[in-house]
Amino acid sequence: MSDACGGTTDETDSTETETETTTCGASADATGADSASACGGASDDTKEKVEATVDDFDADPGRLVAVGLGPGHAEGMTARAKSSLADADHIVGYTTYIDLIPDEITEEADELYDTPMCGEVSRTEEAIDRALAGNDVAIVGSGDPNVYALAGLALEILESKGATASAVDFEVVPGVPAAQSCGARLGAPLVNDSVSVSLSDHLTPMDEIESRLHAVAGEGFTITVYNPWSRKRRENWETACEILREHRADDTPVGIVHGAGRDDEEIEITTLGELESYGETDLVDMTTTVVVGNEETYVWDGRMVTPRGYETKYDY
Amino acid sequence: MSDACGGTTDETDSTETETETTTCGASADATGADSASACGGASDDTKEKVEATVDDFDADPGRLVAVGLGPGHAEGMTARAKSSLADADHIVGYTTYIDLIPDEITEEADELYDTPMCGEVSRTEEAIDRALAGNDVAIVGSGDPNVYALAGLALEILESKGATASAVDFEVVPGVPAAQSCGARLGAPLVNDSVSVSLSDHLTPMDEIESRLHAVAGEGFTITVYNPWSRKRRENWETACEILREHRADDTPVGIVHGAGRDDEEIEITTLGELESYGETDLVDMTTTVVVGNEETYVWDGRMVTPRGYETKYDY
Repeated sequence: MSDACGGTTDETDSTETETETTTCGASADATGADSASACGGASDDTKEKVEATVDDFDADPGRLVAVGLGPGHAEGMTARAKSSLADADHIVGYTTYIDLIPDEITEEADELYDTPMCGEVSRTEEAIDRALAGNDVAIVGSGDPNVYALAGLALEILESKGATASAVDFEVVPGVPAAQSCGARLGAPLVNDSVSVSLSDHLTPMDEIESRLHAVAGEGFTITVYNPWSRKRRENWETACEILREHRADDTPVGIVHGAGRDDEEIEITTLGELESYGETDLVDMTTTVVVGNEETYVWDGRMVTPRGYETKYDY
Repeated sequence: MSDACGGTTDETDSTETETETTTCGASADATGADSASACGGASDDTKEKVEATVDDFDADPGRLVAVGLGPGHAEGMTARAKSSLADADHIVGYTTYIDLIPDEITEEADELYDTPMCGEVSRTEEAIDRALAGNDVAIVGSGDPNVYALAGLALEILESKGATASAVDFEVVPGVPAAQSCGARLGAPLVNDSVSVSLSDHLTPMDEIESRLHAVAGEGFTITVYNPWSRKRRENWETACEILREHRADDTPVGIVHGAGRDDEEIEITTLGELESYGETDLVDMTTTVVVGNEETYVWDGRMVTPRGYETKYDY
């Protein structure tokens, strides 16, 4: 749920302001709806976690599909994403992502279960409970389900409930990740060996993130930085910029994309030496994606270009 | 043109069997068509390169768009990719990719310019010449245009012709890359910080590739390997496997996807210790994508799962 340009939100960051699941963990708290009646099965609505297991359900399970919506507008969705959603009885996701789905698709669903930014664990549990109760369920996120997103969590929770992925015919419907959506807006910055790194240290210790940045910054990777900045994580942004500058020249092109494809889209191509100063501007926030060039990358006609190497072998 | 599951072909590899551009560099040689009449402008059909520059064309330029087709079937294309192709007068690409486009779209184009696997440089030059001649042109590739693909080359060639990206309203239409298409077939192997590395050393020296592999294998990245094997590059595969094993346990899960989404699709989840032996099987060739787990990755119910870290903070 944190990999679409413009919708790049690491939902785990929001929980920094809340105790883990006690304020919005249980489905009933988040929506006011009775999760038991919605699921069709008994569930234990404790505040810490939804404890329904596969044994709580009598029905044959329905299907569960994790769908990537891409960057956040209907034209960025694949045909398969649309048909998967159209086939679903229930569509579950963070409110902002549910809103991205065209009305003609959401109108066909029996139920939409959307919550504000919090508790993706409880929301995924809710989705699985509904599938175990016999509904065909689609859980949605921006970008791709395999990129800082929900595919892994869904499998982990299925296992913890004593179910299997096969029982719900679990499938992942890929979508265009933020690195490529934003790369496209910047021109051709990626092109060769490339890496994605998230600066969100809610689930990954910052020293590991730093170690990863050092490792890739010292090699020829183009680097896409997800979740670059939040009020509580300014230090991570500063540290990341410092690490990059240790290994790469200050004039290395860097692209910043905020709200890609949206009405408030803002794109800026700057340099590594200038990058840190953008942290305190509106351009860089949790929905921003930053693309760092390698030593071959240059800017031409307002676009970032990373040569693939053809110029070393071909004449043009 | 080398980033779709099942269509993952690094076209530069094919040129290993040919001198650089002398056998298929010029458009006329490749298709038998007279590139001058096709372009509408004068062009110098030397065997080494197409030398037409922006001054050779009288017309106002048309548009040039680089379109990512995704994994290789119509349902994997975004709506925007389809509409961009429908809007194009000329669609240019490697024959296999042109064949991926639904008939109802290709039938609307004035011209399709497709060539077999060779000379993506000349094909891209041809596409640009046609745009400079006043046609709206779409160049296509599998996956995403920013992933081991043609977006950067198009910008480089535009510049070499004395044109600008703005003059042809150059745009990149992103698509789902092979890492995510194949990741989806494997379950949830990517999830966190992830890297793509190509083992094709046609344009990138092998010692740089090795250095990059060392750097990322020693960190917690999940690793997608593109262009893993060809008859001429067996050594690269062997070397890559050795490097990975230096840093990661032999029981690290590795997913191999050949022909994702196609009738001949084959998927296998194996371990790092076993990986090298697959090099001599039909499963691993230039159209294969290999996804290497990190130390957290495990296999459950036939799927690769890389936890994001929720289990360290949440109870489920």
